[in-house]
Amino acid sequence: MKPIDFRSDTVTKPTAAMRRAIAEAEVGDDVYGEDPTVLRLEAKVAERLGLEAALFVPSGTQANQLAIGAHCRQGDEVLTEAGSHILHYEGGAVPALWGVQPQPLPGEWGVLTPEVVAAAVREDNIHNPRTRLLSLENTHNRGGGAVWSVERFAQVVKVARDAGLAVHLDGARLFNAEVAAGVPASSWAKLTDTTAVCFSKGLGAPVGSALVGRADLIREARRLRKRLGGGMRQAGILAAAALYGLEHHVERLAEDHANARRLAAGLAEVPGVKVDVKRVETNMVFAEFARPARDMVPLLSTQGVLTNPAGGPHTVRLVTHLDVSAADIDEAVARVRRALK
Amino acid sequence: MKPIDFRSDTVTKPTAAMRRAIAEAEVGDDVYGEDPTVLRLEAKVAERLGLEAALFVPSGTQANQLAIGAHCRQGDEVLTEAGSHILHYEGGAVPALWGVQPQPLPGEWGVLTPEVVAAAVREDNIHNPRTRLLSLENTHNRGGGAVWSVERFAQVVKVARDAGLAVHLDGARLFNAEVAAGVPASSWAKLTDTTAVCFSKGLGAPVGSALVGRADLIREARRLRKRLGGGMRQAGILAAAALYGLEHHVERLAEDHANARRLAAGLAEVPGVKVDVKRVETNMVFAEFARPARDMVPLLSTQGVLTNPAGGPHTVRLVTHLDVSAADIDEAVARVRRALK
Amino acid sequence: MKPIDFRSDTVTKPTAAMRRAIAEAEVGDDVYGEDPTVLRLEAKVAERLGLEAALFVPSGTQANQLAIGAHCRQGDEVLTEAGSHILHYEGGAVPALWGVQPQPLPGEWGVLTPEVVAAAVREDNIHNPRTRLLSLENTHNRGGGAVWSVERFAQVVKVARDAGLAVHLDGARLFNAEVAAGVPASSWAKLTDTTAVCFSKGLGAPVGSALVGRADLIREARRLRKRLGGGMRQAGILAAAALYGLEHHVERLAEDHANARRLAAGLAEVPGVKVDVKRVETNMVFAEFARPARDMVPLLSTQGVLTNPAGGPHTVRLVTHLDVSAADIDEAVARVRRALK
Amino acid sequence: MKPIDFRSDTVTKPTAAMRRAIAEAEVGDDVYGEDPTVLRLEAKVAERLGLEAALFVPSGTQANQLAIGAHCRQGDEVLTEAGSHILHYEGGAVPALWGVQPQPLPGEWGVLTPEVVAAAVREDNIHNPRTRLLSLENTHNRGGGAVWSVERFAQVVKVARDAGLAVHLDGARLFNAEVAAGVPASSWAKLTDTTAVCFSKGLGAPVGSALVGRADLIREARRLRKRLGGGMRQAGILAAAALYGLEHHVERLAEDHANARRLAAGLAEVPGVKVDVKRVETNMVFAEFARPARDMVPLLSTQGVLTNPAGGPHTVRLVTHLDVSAADIDEAVARVRRALK
Repeated sequence: MKPIDFRSDTVTKPTAAMRRAIAEAEVGDDVYGEDPTVLRLEAKVAERLGLEAALFVPSGTQANQLAIGAHCRQGDEVLTEAGSHILHYEGGAVPALWGVQPQPLPGEWGVLTPEVVAAAVREDNIHNPRTRLLSLENTHNRGGGAVWSVERFAQVVKVARDAGLAVHLDGARLFNAEVAAGVPASSWAKLTDTTAVCFSKGLGAPVGSALVGRADLIREARRLRKRLGGGMRQAGILAAAALYGLEHHVERLAEDHANARRLAAGLAEVPGVKVDVKRVETNMVFAEFARPARDMVPLLSTQGVLTNPAGGPHTVRLVTHLDVSAADIDEAVARVRRALK
Repeated sequence: MKPIDFRSDTVTKPTAAMRRAIAEAEVGDDVYGEDPTVLRLEAKVAERLGLEAALFVPSGTQANQLAIGAHCRQGDEVLTEAGSHILHYEGGAVPALWGVQPQPLPGEWGVLTPEVVAAAVREDNIHNPRTRLLSLENTHNRGGGAVWSVERFAQVVKVARDAGLAVHLDGARLFNAEVAAGVPASSWAKLTDTTAVCFSKGLGAPVGSALVGRADLIREARRLRKRLGGGMRQAGILAAAALYGLEHHVERLAEDHANARRLAAGLAEVPGVKVDVKRVETNMVFAEFARPARDMVPLLSTQGVLTNPAGGPHTVRLVTHLDVSAADIDEAVARVRRALK
Repeated sequence: MKPIDFRSDTVTKPTAAMRRAIAEAEVGDDVYGEDPTVLRLEAKVAERLGLEAALFVPSGTQANQLAIGAHCRQGDEVLTEAGSHILHYEGGAVPALWGVQPQPLPGEWGVLTPEVVAAAVREDNIHNPRTRLLSLENTHNRGGGAVWSVERFAQVVKVARDAGLAVHLDGARLFNAEVAAGVPASSWAKLTDTTAVCFSKGLGAPVGSALVGRADLIREARRLRKRLGGGMRQAGILAAAALYGLEHHVERLAEDHANARRLAAGLAEVPGVKVDVKRVETNMVFAEFARPARDMVPLLSTQGVLTNPAGGPHTVRLVTHLDVSAADIDEAVARVRRALK
Repeated sequence: MKPIDFRSDTVTKPTAAMRRAIAEAEVGDDVYGEDPTVLRLEAKVAERLGLEAALFVPSGTQANQLAIGAHCRQGDEVLTEAGSHILHYEGGAVPALWGVQPQPLPGEWGVLTPEVVAAAVREDNIHNPRTRLLSLENTHNRGGGAVWSVERFAQVVKVARDAGLAVHLDGARLFNAEVAAGVPASSWAKLTDTTAVCFSKGLGAPVGSALVGRADLIREARRLRKRLGGGMRQAGILAAAALYGLEHHVERLAEDHANARRLAAGLAEVPGVKVDVKRVETNMVFAEFARPARDMVPLLSTQGVLTNPAGGPHTVRLVTHLDVSAADIDEAVARVRRALK
């Protein structure tokens, strides 16, 4: 039985065309700033996000962490939604690498209100960490792939600006937001100081993310990238795939979204599964089971349906992507039904 | 008009008898471990808390931070109630000094449930910070001076132990808990690996706290104290006052508690003030005003009533202590009434 | 005029055969430990170095830093030769990422004596950092590519072991040492706890290094790699090239070494250049000029000879590699002669 | 046999007059900036050093570390003489607390040349730590208590300024330099951004140091002091002793210097002891013995002469201070002679 892999959109394998782009990539030494493909990718993504400069890095975690390092110093505080990726999936890097305290804020599906942000900013006082940065996430992973409306995003950013904070956007799946909302990714990104985007999720590239933003911050991030060991030599091998994904795989995210809705609708009809279908805005489905997620994930796996536990104790996350077809969706629903019998 | 200072129990000045103890203190070089008064204080406080060893330090913040440093390493996580002192009043030291991520847990008046603690422990996984330490606070400052019952404390500690966590207690006001609950401070402390107690709050000493706990952890804390610049030479000058406070000022905390209840009852009758009288378990009164705390604190100050804002936007904290008498309480209530006219 | 690039052996571009290996790489998600090519590379390099396990990472800097993070904690000290890469070319990462103090030791061409190491170990005392790790480098970059004799290496390691230190080897160019000394790389590596090797220097791969060592340390390094953002998804794309280099480009390092000797001999005859020919043990030539290196590097560049300044103020480093032929060497000598006219 | 304690000038006990000053100290809560004695001490020491502001702290280590924290951020580098206190006696705090890399420079008796400093400044480049701070020490402890000439000090500071570095002075024994050189302490201090001075060494106070410097840096240091747990409440108890020492014990350092010369001269005549008498500029004597220091220190101790090992393996340090008289010196020489028989 061929497994259907919904664990993450990171599992996609490069297509034949993408492999050709990789094989033919023009390269140079990117630590010396001489890899033409990396330079082309960086220019293109900066332009697309409406920001000044970009930096190619090995992972989304590194892109986020470089932003935090460029914005903050030890003893600073970053405001971020309580379920955000930087809090839960980056190995404690915010404090461990930078000595920065995260203040988790309550959101709804990962989306914050201006009031919550305003109330969280601390006064300047020797007892307090210095509130320095607001880090947002769009689409929001633990929020079920929820998309921030541009309006709400702008309101929250304004509150942060008024309080003197810098703003970072973890846009690992920002192109999913672009496609779902029907507005360009720059709608959100241009309001920020720095935005991280990922090429190895829905865009299907094997490896790589970019940190995009104000030129001075990207310059500092380049320095910090060296420190974290993210400086790669002939990185054009990877950047070629990222460029290919950016040029050919953005529009097709609509298929992943349609597949996610199809999956949600299918699962909602399976007895013992609860899915809030209207929350499926992009490529993620959060399904609630009677049994704990730590039991369900292995059980589904025995039926060849690969998933991951999500935030809640009974929540299982299913992510659609390039390597999952509409037919796979129907087959997966049938398998889940079988597993729960 | 003589101000009545409810800002904190840290503002007390040494009594004449305490000053005599200071002036006559036998001293030595404590960095070499040769100050007899410091050694006597350390032995006494360790015995009193039912723990192996103690270390005299300049402040409660340093006592807590040395504990975190002794228990954790970079990338670890400490579980702590959302309003705890280590999160809000120690300058972001948990991440800044140790690279440790705090995970704030929801409590009721600073008190946690075993369920909340159990659910917060992360599985061991490369994506996660390592959950390593549970840090509790008793009495709980932002919890209005609330006292943990020994039973609840033991339950929560058990959950932590079962998950392999170490346990620290921020007992800056642990002797207030002892007096209020009528059980020895060791009832809580002996369940922990490390407990911090403070001599310059209700006990009235000018300067100093102790970190008390397992001998190996205190040895490591002694090393870390040097790194933080907390090694003092003829520290017996301060330890003498701390010893005096420990011997003469514990029982009298009952007066501070009675004064706090008197203050709460008095304020509860003032129009425009809300006080939950039954929450006044020790020496703190949290009063809610219609106007924001940031306006009320200066307004009360003009009437010679010195206070501090507390957690909530409309909450003002009043703390009773050695330098506030029952007569001061009645006068303060009258002044508050006047201020609100 | 086609430039001849002696700046570093990092500038090599993948060969056609290597590009084929890349294009056909079997891949999976390496963050989940499922990339078969990465797993094959890790197994192969561990076996080749006589150590238990390996971890593929984006750069040599990250490999070294993960080792330091796995061995040390804040306040520890690492002993290392005064010209070592971890001190000078890793962005201050030793203290910045881990809070570890480097103690630079005087060496001769990067090689230490047992006596110097023994004398540097501090006693255990609250005033001192804890001496925890000895980090060696072979071949030694600032030492002109010098090779450690296995005997000396073993003596120095023994002194470290006797003092309770862990041992790391920065073997970015360890295969150069293997070829030059005629003994397997494991001769040095198996004496260490961790060894870093690089695939994107002399072996010609576009990107990647490995940290190799004791299984428990590599497990911890895998965790720390996530924190630094070094976890890559379909990393087999890169690992395929690394494997190719490991299988096909080690023996050929002998050509680079021959070319370096040819270059040294050629330059030694140019008036105004001093080269200590007998110090050319591997693929580096350190040439001394009358004018400062900061002037010579641009001057040589105008003649199409690309170089880097080395440690000393008048020292220029020239590195031979896959993309420099014997004919290039002769041409380069001629150009240097012209530049100095 | 009454021991004669030459281990350090930190061991002095407060005199009767100093104890009176302590007992009568006017106090307030210094965390709120309200302790009048602390404020008076801070104003006085700032004025005396020709700098804008001062901050009272528990130790010299904390004063130095606050300076480093106020000047630097993670990844920066501090230049300092190879034997300096911040490198050897502060528990690895420079990297552990701030992520800053120390670059040890070769000096002569702790004194640097402008050339050495100029050559150590790194160019701005992503591979390098950022050279940010020059930290000097006067008198220099491991340099045998050597005094920097004001001229040399100014030259070295100028080189640092020209390279854009900040300058800190560890002046734990700066008043010894003042008395020895016959110029005010401000001669050196006013050239710096921050200077640390200590009250519990030659000045005889039980506890305390000050960081003195530019107002903005001292403001930042106040914040960092809270983070390190150096904020003390009624710190006037300690500041009163420090003020007393500053007013009454500076001139008398001349006696300690005379005693050190007398001790050096006496020891120089003892067979088996080598002392470079002309190097005794202040209150320290470095004596060389045939046997290792780790044997000599306990041997001398059996004769009631307490000492410490110094930098070299055969070097023993003897420090004169308030609690050692000229008669003690003669007795100590006799005891050393006896010990070596």
